[in-house]
Amino acid sequence: MKDGIDVLVHEVGPRDGLQSIQTIFPTDAKLEWIRAEAAAGVPQIQVGSFVPPKLLPQMADSADVVRQAIEIPGLTVSALVPNLRGAENGMAAGAHQIGVVLSVSEAHNYSNVKRSVQESLDGFSEIVAHRDAHPEYKDVVISGGLATAFGCTIDGPVKVADVMRVAEEYLKRGADRLSVADTVGYANPGQVKALFEELYRTVGTDVSVGAHFHDTRGLGLANAFAALEAGVRELDACLGGLGGCPYAPGATGNIVTEDLVFMLESMGLRTGIDLDALVACREIMERHLTDEPTHGAFATAGKPLGFQPATAA
Amino acid sequence: MKDGIDVLVHEVGPRDGLQSIQTIFPTDAKLEWIRAEAAAGVPQIQVGSFVPPKLLPQMADSADVVRQAIEIPGLTVSALVPNLRGAENGMAAGAHQIGVVLSVSEAHNYSNVKRSVQESLDGFSEIVAHRDAHPEYKDVVISGGLATAFGCTIDGPVKVADVMRVAEEYLKRGADRLSVADTVGYANPGQVKALFEELYRTVGTDVSVGAHFHDTRGLGLANAFAALEAGVRELDACLGGLGGCPYAPGATGNIVTEDLVFMLESMGLRTGIDLDALVACREIMERHLTDEPTHGAFATAGKPLGFQPATAA
Repeated sequence: MKDGIDVLVHEVGPRDGLQSIQTIFPTDAKLEWIRAEAAAGVPQIQVGSFVPPKLLPQMADSADVVRQAIEIPGLTVSALVPNLRGAENGMAAGAHQIGVVLSVSEAHNYSNVKRSVQESLDGFSEIVAHRDAHPEYKDVVISGGLATAFGCTIDGPVKVADVMRVAEEYLKRGADRLSVADTVGYANPGQVKALFEELYRTVGTDVSVGAHFHDTRGLGLANAFAALEAGVRELDACLGGLGGCPYAPGATGNIVTEDLVFMLESMGLRTGIDLDALVACREIMERHLTDEPTHGAFATAGKPLGFQPATAA
Repeated sequence: MKDGIDVLVHEVGPRDGLQSIQTIFPTDAKLEWIRAEAAAGVPQIQVGSFVPPKLLPQMADSADVVRQAIEIPGLTVSALVPNLRGAENGMAAGAHQIGVVLSVSEAHNYSNVKRSVQESLDGFSEIVAHRDAHPEYKDVVISGGLATAFGCTIDGPVKVADVMRVAEEYLKRGADRLSVADTVGYANPGQVKALFEELYRTVGTDVSVGAHFHDTRGLGLANAFAALEAGVRELDACLGGLGGCPYAPGATGNIVTEDLVFMLESMGLRTGIDLDALVACREIMERHLTDEPTHGAFATAGKPLGFQPATAA
């Protein structure tokens, strides 16, 4: 954890938000957004995804975005990758953190990357080996992502034991941290708390664990609080809740960064983020949107009277 | 608690929702809404408020609504009252539960009812005395409501000790239960959990305690989960999140009933409510709205694949 913060808020909007909408942001627009959030104090931003451009044209400039983002002082730059090829490109561009992702649900994983979970895990080992074979990448953090950990749109319920097995495999194969995702917005807070408690029992509390929630059914921040209750101290979020499913009007994507930061700071958990400056970033992002709605309650309602951001205990 | 349910969901839309919007629902429209929710299994509905009609013309027909609602089999009918006069009218109409409300914050209480908190508590004693003096009202449940328990738009922060003092006074004066409200949407889940834990330490766990949250800053369901964690088993909510502040476009009112019920049932907590039938009530309500937006994510996203409602443990 960086100095002076209690919870690491990981902005994933330039990746998860932008890959879920129709508008394609020019590289400069992405960087304007990223720079503004970094200036507001956001410590880590997922700036792109190294996937074939024909699959996600919105992410075609990810190498460029990474190369410029790593010049921003103090910012940890992360990128998502589905396989070795993506990881090679992400590391070559200079990403500080490589988020590898597989779906715990076999059907979802196959549908996404045409591989079994076992094959994806083998691919993960190749990525670690690639990092370890290149001394210039020795500081690159490799994160093992567990998508559909709380349920799957193809398979329905996902077994906790399967999540634990993949988590242990990741760590055995050299993952520096884990990221557990409710990819499709199925989770409830009771389930979230129980799963993270079980995960810490399984892998120990020394492992860095992040949580990634979608607000599809309105439970995103309840799930974030449940994860905090279980001990999680790294949370993904997206400014303005950008994203969501194009087939479900009004459905939201990731939990809303500014609402999450308001929740954390209200609870006395330091994020290092200035709420006013963060809310101002919405306008910068919205300037480049066409028809996509944004979400979030804090930006409309503002701070409670007498609100104080968190201070050191 | 009614048989076969773990958490009592108290629909307050016909009171809190309707008093916060411009549209005035005709009596028949209110009853159509109330009947539909009761048929969906909602066990308790706050159907109106006994306040001077010139203050809240939307609530002018509350006596009529109560009189018809108490004919619905199995439904507990509650009404909100600010003073003895309102309580007399509510009991005369036949309400099963009378929710008396005062603001823990002196400034908010004075602004609302031109009384000090002490004067409001004395008024509460008169209401209990009125009930006790009339044998025909012996089954009427009197609820002591603590508004602005988590902060106030005039006074800012509200002391936990003040909340405890009012709670104890209520019980000393004969309250059958307590209802603790984040009237202005200031609460965060850490604060909620701590306050309810302190409340149970103060008044004991035998006292029925309800919680009332607004989703003004997006934390409504996180706060509801935090209250559950502390042991609360009665929650207010409003279908479609109707309400909110007319001066803050997009700001929501109470937490959304159908999102709350989805959260509870997902967590294995039985509400007695059929989610499909509940979502269908939105259309019935929306038919009578003019420009007011509704809120909620579950109605758009639907059930997760493989979703099972809660069953007896």
